[in-house]
Amino acid sequence: MWKDLAPLGRDPDTSGYRRHAWTPVDLELRAWFTDRARERGLTVETDRNGNQWALLGDPATGGVVATGSHLDSVPDGGAFDGPLGVVSALAALDELHRRGARPHRPLAVVNFADEEGARFGLACVGSRLAVGALDPERARRLRDAEGTTLASAMERAGHDPGALGPDPDRLGRLAAFVELHVEQGRVLAALPDGGRAVGVGSAVWPHGRWRLDFRGEANHAGTTRLEDRRDPMLTYANTVLAARKKARLAGALAGFGRVRVEPNAVNAVPSLVSGWLDARAPDHACLDGLVADIGRAAAERARRDGTSLEIHRESFTEGVDFDHALRDRLAAVLADPEGRPAPLLPTGAGHDAGILAAALPTAMLYVRNPTGVSHAPAEHADAEDRAAGVTALADVLEELSCR
Amino acid sequence: MWKDLAPLGRDPDTSGYRRHAWTPVDLELRAWFTDRARERGLTVETDRNGNQWALLGDPATGGVVATGSHLDSVPDGGAFDGPLGVVSALAALDELHRRGARPHRPLAVVNFADEEGARFGLACVGSRLAVGALDPERARRLRDAEGTTLASAMERAGHDPGALGPDPDRLGRLAAFVELHVEQGRVLAALPDGGRAVGVGSAVWPHGRWRLDFRGEANHAGTTRLEDRRDPMLTYANTVLAARKKARLAGALAGFGRVRVEPNAVNAVPSLVSGWLDARAPDHACLDGLVADIGRAAAERARRDGTSLEIHRESFTEGVDFDHALRDRLAAVLADPEGRPAPLLPTGAGHDAGILAAALPTAMLYVRNPTGVSHAPAEHADAEDRAAGVTALADVLEELSCR
Repeated sequence: MWKDLAPLGRDPDTSGYRRHAWTPVDLELRAWFTDRARERGLTVETDRNGNQWALLGDPATGGVVATGSHLDSVPDGGAFDGPLGVVSALAALDELHRRGARPHRPLAVVNFADEEGARFGLACVGSRLAVGALDPERARRLRDAEGTTLASAMERAGHDPGALGPDPDRLGRLAAFVELHVEQGRVLAALPDGGRAVGVGSAVWPHGRWRLDFRGEANHAGTTRLEDRRDPMLTYANTVLAARKKARLAGALAGFGRVRVEPNAVNAVPSLVSGWLDARAPDHACLDGLVADIGRAAAERARRDGTSLEIHRESFTEGVDFDHALRDRLAAVLADPEGRPAPLLPTGAGHDAGILAAALPTAMLYVRNPTGVSHAPAEHADAEDRAAGVTALADVLEELSCR
Repeated sequence: MWKDLAPLGRDPDTSGYRRHAWTPVDLELRAWFTDRARERGLTVETDRNGNQWALLGDPATGGVVATGSHLDSVPDGGAFDGPLGVVSALAALDELHRRGARPHRPLAVVNFADEEGARFGLACVGSRLAVGALDPERARRLRDAEGTTLASAMERAGHDPGALGPDPDRLGRLAAFVELHVEQGRVLAALPDGGRAVGVGSAVWPHGRWRLDFRGEANHAGTTRLEDRRDPMLTYANTVLAARKKARLAGALAGFGRVRVEPNAVNAVPSLVSGWLDARAPDHACLDGLVADIGRAAAERARRDGTSLEIHRESFTEGVDFDHALRDRLAAVLADPEGRPAPLLPTGAGHDAGILAAALPTAMLYVRNPTGVSHAPAEHADAEDRAAGVTALADVLEELSCR
């Protein structure tokens, strides 16, 4: 399956992927999904929110065991974030077939729409809509960088944006959802005795994005005495370093990946530097404390620099503790030959499984990523580990659908 | 004159000016110059490099006393940087006429083309070409942000780019060039006893622009452990603070006003942060030492962050010590009632007068700027000080052309 998937949306210069929701390449990916599912005798449906479901058995009976992930990518993303979960899901069905397994529950493979939010700025749109965590009207009005709304992008792609909204009937028929994903760090690779190929998700850390606007006074960089400057770049720079230090002390994550400068001219002291803070922590209180600490350090430095500071929270996602019973059952099914359960991993990244956790028992499997890189072309999973992931997912589906 | 000049190229939102070289608004400004000069009976010529000359008397006799400045602006610039020198030059000719002065040398008012370099990235293009400090082929190939070359922009504006090049005959006919300019700092305003309205330029500091490329590894900001990150934003931030500190210790100027980040996504550790360093110092050795110091601090931090650093010098302009005899003569002519000569001011900013200094005696007059702001809408000169500037320039032109 990887061979025909690989060229879709790949940038020839960077080898990174640009598979953004509801673009022509996304439609190719969706057609690929439909074709691969139908080849296996699965029935393909698209739900009201644009998520694709490939079904084995009659879902109307309920107790559906679902797996899958997403096919869209961040700009210049890697090959595995998303597709590994979809490809492994289809391959796991093949594996169940080879084993002669006889599921007495229906199975579903899902391709969630717009998980990365790379185009419209909000992640997990398809799953958020389904569980009722996103207002359909707000979703329709989301705009991409060209000003196109999600509604009109969907319409052009042949999907009715008027249908968007909660989908309790469909979700009510699911017994569980298990998402397999390439690991986005090096925890599995760094485990003793050569690491482990597959782990089980324990939790998603709460995380958020804050925009810090540092305002100073535009001025000529060649003639304004240092002591007469009100340079917001200094305040920004100090805050970048403070955020790193405070995150380290808190056992959390924080960093600035996006900056905008006005007027952004070499010989001008900036009037405005906006920096976007991405911060995540093991729990809500820790995250609140971290962001408050960073804000205090920034405000203190702003006073020294004669600049001002405004902090805007642009998004916030509560943490998720995955269903403990399901998690422990999976870890036991995936125990190694010595009987040691699969390792449990928390993550700072959001996933559709985290969103669906509000509606039904969900779980995640992670496949080892030797580079630890994520959202970039160097993201990797060895062929051997991918096979181990398929076997693990087949074991889990067999456990959930045949026992 | 200010009334009809004021609306040209003004942004209604910011009240700042966007008067970039060879754009439609620049052509309006050039037509304004021609009209105001012809009203005064001056002959207007455009030289091979696009600089406009308004002439009183026959320049072929040589010994021309020239004054003027430029009409273009930086993005969102103030009203006076450039135009004050052109308007004051025309007003000073009016004043000489009122005084009944009889120049026995020709006079010229010049509007230099593309002084700010805001569109094509290189400052003082018109004067650099004239003195032979800029290769015409390189000039023609300069590109703006849209990819338009200077050659094609000139052509569209009706000027032949094939004619660009050194202009020794024209410059050889000049006895002196005096540029009046709004002060770009608060030195005149801060002088004892209420400050002085007009000062005389002593020198232009050497200055340059360096691009520092900090490379790390793109990664997911939600899942990559802090210790696994190679985050070039940290190295950049530390370098911003180091540059400020080292400039202060060296009695020089340094800062970062422009930044570019890749991929510039909120949830991605950047792969590349490029920061542009603008640095200026009283002399060449001090500037070299400063930039080397900043580079050393950046490289040291890069080792700690696991990032790499490349430094590219994008431009460098030697310092200029204005002609001492002319400078002292002007300071004496502009002495206050107690006989104290006009104050002498160095500057960190480049000017056409600094470029022409390589070919003939040049000098600068500065008019007090109470805000000290430059290259931004808050740049200011009081009406009274502008009048004092015109009187001073008339005194200087009378001294140089009638004595």
